[in-house]
Amino acid sequence: FSCFSNHKVFILFAAPTCSYQNVLDHLHLTKANETFTMSRPVKDHTNKTVLYLEMIVYAILDVKETDQTFIAYVWIYMEWGNDYILWNKDDFCGISEVIVPTEVLWKPDITIEEMIEKDKAPQSPFLKIHSNGTIEFRNDQIVISACRMHVYKFPFDIQKCNITFKSYLYAEHELQIEIEKNSSVISMWSREIMATEFEWVFVDMTVTNSTVNHYGYNQTIVIYTIEMKRKSVLHVASFVLPILFFLCLDFFSLLLPHGGGEKIGFKTTVLLAVTVLQLILIEILPFTSSKIPLIVVYILGIFGLMLLSLLETIVVNYLIEMDSASQDDAQSVNE
Amino acid sequence: FSCFSNHKVFILFAAPTCSYQNVLDHLHLTKANETFTMSRPVKDHTNKTVLYLEMIVYAILDVKETDQTFIAYVWIYMEWGNDYILWNKDDFCGISEVIVPTEVLWKPDITIEEMIEKDKAPQSPFLKIHSNGTIEFRNDQIVISACRMHVYKFPFDIQKCNITFKSYLYAEHELQIEIEKNSSVISMWSREIMATEFEWVFVDMTVTNSTVNHYGYNQTIVIYTIEMKRKSVLHVASFVLPILFFLCLDFFSLLLPHGGGEKIGFKTTVLLAVTVLQLILIEILPFTSSKIPLIVVYILGIFGLMLLSLLETIVVNYLIEMDSASQDDAQSVNE
Amino acid sequence: FSCFSNHKVFILFAAPTCSYQNVLDHLHLTKANETFTMSRPVKDHTNKTVLYLEMIVYAILDVKETDQTFIAYVWIYMEWGNDYILWNKDDFCGISEVIVPTEVLWKPDITIEEMIEKDKAPQSPFLKIHSNGTIEFRNDQIVISACRMHVYKFPFDIQKCNITFKSYLYAEHELQIEIEKNSSVISMWSREIMATEFEWVFVDMTVTNSTVNHYGYNQTIVIYTIEMKRKSVLHVASFVLPILFFLCLDFFSLLLPHGGGEKIGFKTTVLLAVTVLQLILIEILPFTSSKIPLIVVYILGIFGLMLLSLLETIVVNYLIEMDSASQDDAQSVNE
Amino acid sequence: FSCFSNHKVFILFAAPTCSYQNVLDHLHLTKANETFTMSRPVKDHTNKTVLYLEMIVYAILDVKETDQTFIAYVWIYMEWGNDYILWNKDDFCGISEVIVPTEVLWKPDITIEEMIEKDKAPQSPFLKIHSNGTIEFRNDQIVISACRMHVYKFPFDIQKCNITFKSYLYAEHELQIEIEKNSSVISMWSREIMATEFEWVFVDMTVTNSTVNHYGYNQTIVIYTIEMKRKSVLHVASFVLPILFFLCLDFFSLLLPHGGGEKIGFKTTVLLAVTVLQLILIEILPFTSSKIPLIVVYILGIFGLMLLSLLETIVVNYLIEMDSASQDDAQSVNE
Amino acid sequence: FSCFSNHKVFILFAAPTCSYQNVLDHLHLTKANETFTMSRPVKDHTNKTVLYLEMIVYAILDVKETDQTFIAYVWIYMEWGNDYILWNKDDFCGISEVIVPTEVLWKPDITIEEMIEKDKAPQSPFLKIHSNGTIEFRNDQIVISACRMHVYKFPFDIQKCNITFKSYLYAEHELQIEIEKNSSVISMWSREIMATEFEWVFVDMTVTNSTVNHYGYNQTIVIYTIEMKRKSVLHVASFVLPILFFLCLDFFSLLLPHGGGEKIGFKTTVLLAVTVLQLILIEILPFTSSKIPLIVVYILGIFGLMLLSLLETIVVNYLIEMDSASQDDAQSVNE
Repeated sequence: FSCFSNHKVFILFAAPTCSYQNVLDHLHLTKANETFTMSRPVKDHTNKTVLYLEMIVYAILDVKETDQTFIAYVWIYMEWGNDYILWNKDDFCGISEVIVPTEVLWKPDITIEEMIEKDKAPQSPFLKIHSNGTIEFRNDQIVISACRMHVYKFPFDIQKCNITFKSYLYAEHELQIEIEKNSSVISMWSREIMATEFEWVFVDMTVTNSTVNHYGYNQTIVIYTIEMKRKSVLHVASFVLPILFFLCLDFFSLLLPHGGGEKIGFKTTVLLAVTVLQLILIEILPFTSSKIPLIVVYILGIFGLMLLSLLETIVVNYLIEMDSASQDDAQSVNE
Repeated sequence: FSCFSNHKVFILFAAPTCSYQNVLDHLHLTKANETFTMSRPVKDHTNKTVLYLEMIVYAILDVKETDQTFIAYVWIYMEWGNDYILWNKDDFCGISEVIVPTEVLWKPDITIEEMIEKDKAPQSPFLKIHSNGTIEFRNDQIVISACRMHVYKFPFDIQKCNITFKSYLYAEHELQIEIEKNSSVISMWSREIMATEFEWVFVDMTVTNSTVNHYGYNQTIVIYTIEMKRKSVLHVASFVLPILFFLCLDFFSLLLPHGGGEKIGFKTTVLLAVTVLQLILIEILPFTSSKIPLIVVYILGIFGLMLLSLLETIVVNYLIEMDSASQDDAQSVNE
Repeated sequence: FSCFSNHKVFILFAAPTCSYQNVLDHLHLTKANETFTMSRPVKDHTNKTVLYLEMIVYAILDVKETDQTFIAYVWIYMEWGNDYILWNKDDFCGISEVIVPTEVLWKPDITIEEMIEKDKAPQSPFLKIHSNGTIEFRNDQIVISACRMHVYKFPFDIQKCNITFKSYLYAEHELQIEIEKNSSVISMWSREIMATEFEWVFVDMTVTNSTVNHYGYNQTIVIYTIEMKRKSVLHVASFVLPILFFLCLDFFSLLLPHGGGEKIGFKTTVLLAVTVLQLILIEILPFTSSKIPLIVVYILGIFGLMLLSLLETIVVNYLIEMDSASQDDAQSVNE
Repeated sequence: FSCFSNHKVFILFAAPTCSYQNVLDHLHLTKANETFTMSRPVKDHTNKTVLYLEMIVYAILDVKETDQTFIAYVWIYMEWGNDYILWNKDDFCGISEVIVPTEVLWKPDITIEEMIEKDKAPQSPFLKIHSNGTIEFRNDQIVISACRMHVYKFPFDIQKCNITFKSYLYAEHELQIEIEKNSSVISMWSREIMATEFEWVFVDMTVTNSTVNHYGYNQTIVIYTIEMKRKSVLHVASFVLPILFFLCLDFFSLLLPHGGGEKIGFKTTVLLAVTVLQLILIEILPFTSSKIPLIVVYILGIFGLMLLSLLETIVVNYLIEMDSASQDDAQSVNE
Repeated sequence: FSCFSNHKVFILFAAPTCSYQNVLDHLHLTKANETFTMSRPVKDHTNKTVLYLEMIVYAILDVKETDQTFIAYVWIYMEWGNDYILWNKDDFCGISEVIVPTEVLWKPDITIEEMIEKDKAPQSPFLKIHSNGTIEFRNDQIVISACRMHVYKFPFDIQKCNITFKSYLYAEHELQIEIEKNSSVISMWSREIMATEFEWVFVDMTVTNSTVNHYGYNQTIVIYTIEMKRKSVLHVASFVLPILFFLCLDFFSLLLPHGGGEKIGFKTTVLLAVTVLQLILIEILPFTSSKIPLIVVYILGIFGLMLLSLLETIVVNYLIEMDSASQDDAQSVNE
């Protein structure tokens, strides 16, 4: 064993002392060294670890009203300190940062509160360590989160969905989460790189951090709120307009002659068409609201109007017939 | 090897003895130390491990009647004792708790009995150990569980779904599961934090623990029962009302003149509309009940009524025709 | 290193020798000891390992006719011997069983032959070892298996699905699978704990074990056969009855007057309704059978009957018209 | 440490030298011995590793025309040589084969070229090593593969799908893949054990191996071609027949009287029914072909025929009316 | 321990020194040697690692307009240098390349920017190392990527989707990505091997590499752009043609007699048919565009035309009736 390790040392010394491995050797950073992974990397336990967090929305992938879920593709940037990592870059030919595998270092247990489907994909395999002890982590993540939708004004609705970052176990005096950039900057950045927005127009994004009491101790949380407006033009073209057209048709049926059955047949057909459109709408809307959405009121209203007008036609027809029958009777009496 | 370890010891001694690592060193808690992972952490095997368990429902994600599954997003809190973990916090500058990776310690093999799709996502990466040997574990989990639904009163039904925690292998005298908070407290907490309730209104949550005999030895189980009421307003607006409207239309067809074919055509059209609505309902309801749900009885009843009234119209039409034909014959005879 | 291990030994000796760890130390059972995992745990290779297997069906989750798959949630119990595990429980204060992590011991490579979607979820994390060398393993598993369905008698069909346990590689003289309980006991147990049965009524479950020759050597297999009857009441209410109703309507159209077009219109409408119902049925039934199911024959028969009656009506109408036209001609000639 | 290993040796020597572990000890086959996993197990690098491969189709699970995927459940058998494994079975009481965990030995990097969804399930946990150095591996696998479908003759089509085995990196002079059994044998075996065939009848299976040049060096590939015929009886019953029925109805409408509107109404209704059937067909067929399938030509043809006949009826009606109008004019002039 | 390793050395020396293991021993390449995995493998940290990247599209699996995702099956080839790997092939009987497990060497952290569902499948298990320090990696991958679709010209649209390779953390001066082959070569290769193209015709593929500034430092990215044309023949056959047919029918209704209700009934039926076709189209098209696609304009236009012509018919009918009524009045007055 010894001859082997001597051999290695020899190779490294023969080379100029500017390899990344030299830094790692100086730090004793190996996969086996448990000091770096077993606990929060502070020399004095009263020291707080400050985590700088930043999130940019790269794509709004899906917003499912029926499932009340919001699916976004986000870029996450995290930065925190590690007391055991420190070197003088001048001792190592100016190496100021080394990129090392993720599993050799402690990572904060940050989770997204609303996330209802955990990301099973492997995370970024590397971390960047800086000579002053700062650790940098970047990751791309699909966030499938629960979001309470308000479909009252559908299809002209604006939705707000939260993405809340928090630690599972660390209290505020151990791990404090800070925001790096303010709301307007991340809004602007997200707007610039947004690749796909699905059915939505990205309106705005705000970020706040606050302290909450979670079962016995305070924790800091960071809440990103994403505001989106629905693109309603195709919904109008496919639901609102056709229904208006059919209402229009129904009104024009006034011009049809009263007596015959064709008016009733025409009105029944139009009523059936509206029923079909109504059923399609109900497939799109969630059954989750306790308040009936405006668009359902709109369709049910038109449906009701047509129904009443159909009933009225039937009654009028009946009365006309009665009348003519009595006239016939009168005539026959007269005769 | 020796120079390296000396070096490390030197660094640690130079720093004040308040690092978390000092506690771990004192406990000999390393990834390689199998005492902590190989068996239940009691010094005397007759000692019982008591597990305090708590669950809060964070979101009701889906209730699929057709699949008889209930999907919830829950927060689980567990706490148990470990005889091998004990330190005097005064010896370590007041450190009373350390957060360590999950894989270095034994964890109870708690499973959810009804869970039909195992959670493939990684669990919380850390555990909190306390100076008195208490271990604290927190996790967020999606529970996809089997739940026998009763759709008899659909859409005015109330469902009760169970989430049962038990150990795979430990008997009651080895692992005993206790409830930390009573039913009313967890009900209240769940109601407060409930983020999304899907199509349901969370009514209540109860928790009981009992002892069952599982193939040879007693085990403690903890049963959480979640009671939910369906939000029925949109179902009424989309199914119950339109069918009533069509029944109404069918009644008004009495006012149509008997003789012509238009009455029969009108009634047939209305019957078709009800058939279409009935088919949509059957897509929503599961074929799992041996009792026909009330709403199906309701629709089949209305369907039957309309059918009978249609048949009656046809027969009456026929009789009138017969009658007039015989009158015509009589007339022609008279003539 | 030495001071550390002395320290540990000291702690353990100070405690009474009743810790589980003492047993493991006695057996030299550690994660690094490859004797326990590298090969079948018999001291003499001519010894057979006998595996006792038991399966209970906890839930029938889905039976997909169109995919020919059967999804069940089962509880599996396995028990086998390990020659390297043996201790006298009196030497260890009466400890007769220890629960250890699964990965430290050899496990038989039992697989389910019909399983078409492998279970990606982690298995039970622990095994129970007994002082006489018996190993006990319990697991809950979702079994997604291929099952040849016979839909000829749909919706009054009874299906039989097999779950076959076998070893990948071990021959019969190495690993023999035995059944612990007989068919009637596991049927009874399954019936008792069955949580959800989906669209089916659990009828019976039988178990047999046999020997098959698999590419060069004999292997024992254990076949569990699950027999289920479909709950047909809702299918009757939604397909069979409405079609009968429409057939009924079609018969009553005999009473409509012959001459006018309304009879043909009425019959065409009823024919369309049956076509729609037929299409829905075809969505439910698989295209997998080479024999046409009875229900399709039933619907096609009724469809054909209606079609013929419609054609007959058209022909009769035509003949009546011809007749009256010739009479008119005759009349006009007479005149 | 030393006392422990002495102890172990003692136990093993006390037992007869017929344990599998003795063979492994002789081979120095341990998890830590990297000779067995780091590189292709040949003593002289110019030696070729010959891999015997065999595949049997156990079930055709799905053939999705719209996705152009073919899903089968196959049994794979592989056998190759390892120069580092060799023992005289007479030295070990006749032990001629040992079953060891998969991860302790090198395995060829065989992949299926068409596979579009990688199998995430764990593979068979064991390999069988023979005393002459042969390694045997068996696995069950779901193959989800891309397959170019030809739907031109739907529903009377025959599809051929390939499953191509190749190595990621090894050239032909390093790893050569050989077929164990010829096409007729595997065809026969597959036909015997086929558990489910979905919508298809398994026709034949052929196997060929060839050499291809892949970016710089030759590789051997083995191509299994599976030929299947669609079961078309239900497709005929549900699409082809009803459309013929409706065409039939349309022809019979010739017998309806010309003048009135009822003929046009009847023909329009039949045309609508065919439109609905056409739309259902388009849901089943993929949009992937650049040639229009025969069945679409068939339906479009019938649709066109009906349309023309409807237009002709309208024109004839118009001409008759014109004629009678001019006759009326002539009459009124005459009068 | 020492006797064992002596033993091994003995075996290896007895064999000719042409085993792959000899090369690995020379390089000290073992799983435990962290020099090869902990950091970028350059001896001088100012050396740039150049990564040659190549991608060929093997299959276009799916293009989902409604989800705005593009799913392709690609072959990726990567090649980079490792300063720690170097041997003289003449010293090792001419061995110029060794294939070793992937996990023993550093791999660049290349990710695909648009990828919205991470590949959970295991990657190719081996890397090829060359005697000059070049590392070769090949992999097959499913890429599920976000792609902004332009459906304005549907179904005659051409889509361009990007696949962008970049490093998570490495700056341009550390890791530079180069393209091996130019656009025309990879286009040609992709066209040759394309197994399935789904609904699309592969048109062209271009590749460019550029430098972007990502949060503080420059990174090289490589963008592959895939251009595809939709196969529109079936869309034309199923949507565009039938709608034209129905428009045609509507025009011919001019020939129907004005007075009766049959003209209105006919026109209403045709209008309903177009409504149904319109709804099906809306299911296919995404609601994601802010501009209404041409095909929707086409259908809405035809729908509007028919509606206007229907209204006009109703009005004309009304006027004719009014006129005849006034004539009747005039007549009766005259009488």
